[in-house]
Amino acid sequence: MKNYILQNENSVYFECGYSCDNVIFLSIGGDNYFITDARYKIEATLIARNCEVIITNDLIKQSQKILKKNKIKKLHFDPSDFSLFTYEKLKDGLKIDFIQEANFSKLKRMIKSDDEIKLIKKAMQLGREGFERFAFFLQYNNKRDEKYLQFKAKEMMSDFGTYDLSFDPIVAINKNSAKPHATPTHTILAKNDFLLVDAGVKYERYCSDRTCVSPYSKDITFKREQSFYKKEQQKVYDIVLKAQETAISKARVGMKASKIDKLARDVIEKSGYGKYFIHSTGHGVGLDIHEYPNINSRNDVILENNMVFTIEPGIYLNEKFGVRIEDTVVMKKGRAEIL
Amino acid sequence: MKNYILQNENSVYFECGYSCDNVIFLSIGGDNYFITDARYKIEATLIARNCEVIITNDLIKQSQKILKKNKIKKLHFDPSDFSLFTYEKLKDGLKIDFIQEANFSKLKRMIKSDDEIKLIKKAMQLGREGFERFAFFLQYNNKRDEKYLQFKAKEMMSDFGTYDLSFDPIVAINKNSAKPHATPTHTILAKNDFLLVDAGVKYERYCSDRTCVSPYSKDITFKREQSFYKKEQQKVYDIVLKAQETAISKARVGMKASKIDKLARDVIEKSGYGKYFIHSTGHGVGLDIHEYPNINSRNDVILENNMVFTIEPGIYLNEKFGVRIEDTVVMKKGRAEIL
Repeated sequence: MKNYILQNENSVYFECGYSCDNVIFLSIGGDNYFITDARYKIEATLIARNCEVIITNDLIKQSQKILKKNKIKKLHFDPSDFSLFTYEKLKDGLKIDFIQEANFSKLKRMIKSDDEIKLIKKAMQLGREGFERFAFFLQYNNKRDEKYLQFKAKEMMSDFGTYDLSFDPIVAINKNSAKPHATPTHTILAKNDFLLVDAGVKYERYCSDRTCVSPYSKDITFKREQSFYKKEQQKVYDIVLKAQETAISKARVGMKASKIDKLARDVIEKSGYGKYFIHSTGHGVGLDIHEYPNINSRNDVILENNMVFTIEPGIYLNEKFGVRIEDTVVMKKGRAEIL
Repeated sequence: MKNYILQNENSVYFECGYSCDNVIFLSIGGDNYFITDARYKIEATLIARNCEVIITNDLIKQSQKILKKNKIKKLHFDPSDFSLFTYEKLKDGLKIDFIQEANFSKLKRMIKSDDEIKLIKKAMQLGREGFERFAFFLQYNNKRDEKYLQFKAKEMMSDFGTYDLSFDPIVAINKNSAKPHATPTHTILAKNDFLLVDAGVKYERYCSDRTCVSPYSKDITFKREQSFYKKEQQKVYDIVLKAQETAISKARVGMKASKIDKLARDVIEKSGYGKYFIHSTGHGVGLDIHEYPNINSRNDVILENNMVFTIEPGIYLNEKFGVRIEDTVVMKKGRAEIL
C-alpha cells in the first residue's frame, strides 16, 4: 500500500469529501489523517470521511510526528503540490524517502467515475440555464459596461448565489474579446456589438465550462446558431464552430489527445486563420477547472471512456474581435458527448 | 544589484503594475522581464511598467535562456513562491546559485508607501459603504438563507460588481458564526438572530478587511454599538469589543507584534473566555489579504509607521455563536489608526 501526502484542496476533497484552505492529508498503510487548524474543526469532524481529523497549530510538525510514530520509510508526493519551502521543512529531520510523483492526484482523477460524471453533467446543465438567464437579462438591459455585465453574469450563472462558479466569468465586448482571458472594462454594450461569454458553474464542487459568442440585440440568445451583423464575424464564427463540431464528432476512444487538437486545428488552418488560434484546444474538467487530459498538439495521452474535457477552439483578431466556442464533453461508448 | 525571480501574481504586480495567472518576472542587473503566454500579450504590453514583455509557450525555458544569455551567477527567490517541481525544472542545466530568501516580496511590501495606504483607506471606505448597503438590504429582506445572503453581500459589498472583493464574504447566522471560517448553509435569518459578516473590498487591487456582528432586526446596522437580545451575546460582544479597542488604542510603533496580540488576548483571558479565542489577533493587509506583519503571540517583528494590519479578536462558543470584531488599521505617527 502506497503512503502519500497531499496539500491541494481539491486533491484532499477527492480523498475524503471535505477540504479547506489549510490542510495536510496523510495516507499511511491505509490509515488517513486530515490535519488542519482549529478554524475547521467543526466542519472537518462532521464531514470528512474515512480519516481521522487532527487539529494543530503546526501542520508540518504534526505530520512529521505521525510519520515518525508509524516508522514510515517511503512517502509519495506531487512536487507541484508542495512549495520548496514546505517540502524542505517537511523532510527536515526525517529519514524518509520522499518519492516524487508528478501530478499524483490529477492522474488519479483523470478518468471519472460515473457518479462524478453525473455531477459534471448537472453542473453543465446548471451552466446552460445560467447562460439562458443571462441572455434574458441582456434582452432587457443594454447600455451597461463589461464590469457591470460581468457582475450580472455571476448573478445569473450562480442562480443568485445558489451555486458557486467554476471561475470569474469572462464577458468581453468587440475588441476585448480578442484577448482570450480578457478582464472587464468600462466598454458599454450596444446594438450589434460582438459579445463573448465564458462561464461555468460548480455542482457539489465539480466544475463545468462553456463559451458562447453572440451579436447583441434585444433577441440575444446563447445558442450555437447565430447571425452576425458583420460578414467577417460570421465567417470566423462559422469556421470556429465547424472546428469545434468536427473535433467533437470525430473524437474517439483510443486516439491521442493531440489528435483531437489536430482535428480542430486543421479546420482553422485550412481556412487560413491558423496563426490566430493561439491556444490549445481544451483541458480536462473536474474538481479543478483545469485537469487532465490536456488537449493540445503535444499530448500523447490516449483517450479513454469517462474522460471529461473541453473542446474550445478559437480565432483571435487583435483590435477586432475573437471567437471561441466551448463545450465540456465526456468520452462515452467510444465517442465524445456534450455533457 | 540583486537579481531575483518571482512568480506570485501580487508580487509581480507590485513590481510593474500588471500581473496575470501565468507569469515569471525576472529582475537582472536592474533590467526587468515580464514573461507570459500569448493570452496576456495585449494587456501586458499596454500596462506593465519598467519591464520588457516576452511572450512564450514555455516560461521556464524562456527564463533559462535569459539567465544564460546574461551570464547570471546568483539569483534570489522565495522558496514559498516556487513549487518543488518548478524549482527543479528551472535550475536544471543552469550553473546558477539559487539563493533562498523566505518571503522576499512580502517583506518588501510590509511597510506601505503613502500611496498604497491611500488605496487601502479607499478600499476600507468602500467596504464600510458596502456594509451599510448590505444592512439596508437586510432591513427589507429577511427570511433568506445564508447562501442567498452571502450572494447579496457580494453584490452590496462590490457595489453591484464595480469593485472586486478581498475574499468571499462570510455571512454566518447563530451557531454557524462559532466557526471562524464558516461556509454558508441553508439556515434562514429570523428576527433576533445573531449575525456575523466578515467582508472586504479591493480598490486598485489593494484589499480591505472588516468584521461586524449584529442582532437581526428591521433596524439592523453594522455599527459598533449593538444591543443583543440575549444577555450572553451582549456580554461576549462587549468583551471582544473592549479587547479590540484596547489593542487599537494601546498599539505603538516600537512594540513587538506579539504585544498587540497580548493586549487583546489579556482582556479576553481576564474575562474568563481565553480558551475560546482560538486564532491570532490579526494579519497584514495589502495586495494580498494576508500579508505581514502577523499579529500573533509568537511574532517578534517591531511595529513601524506605515504598517497596515487587522485587529480582530474573537470568542467562539461551539454550538452557540461566535463574536469577532475586526478593523484594518495603519500605524501612523506612532499609533494605530483605523483606516
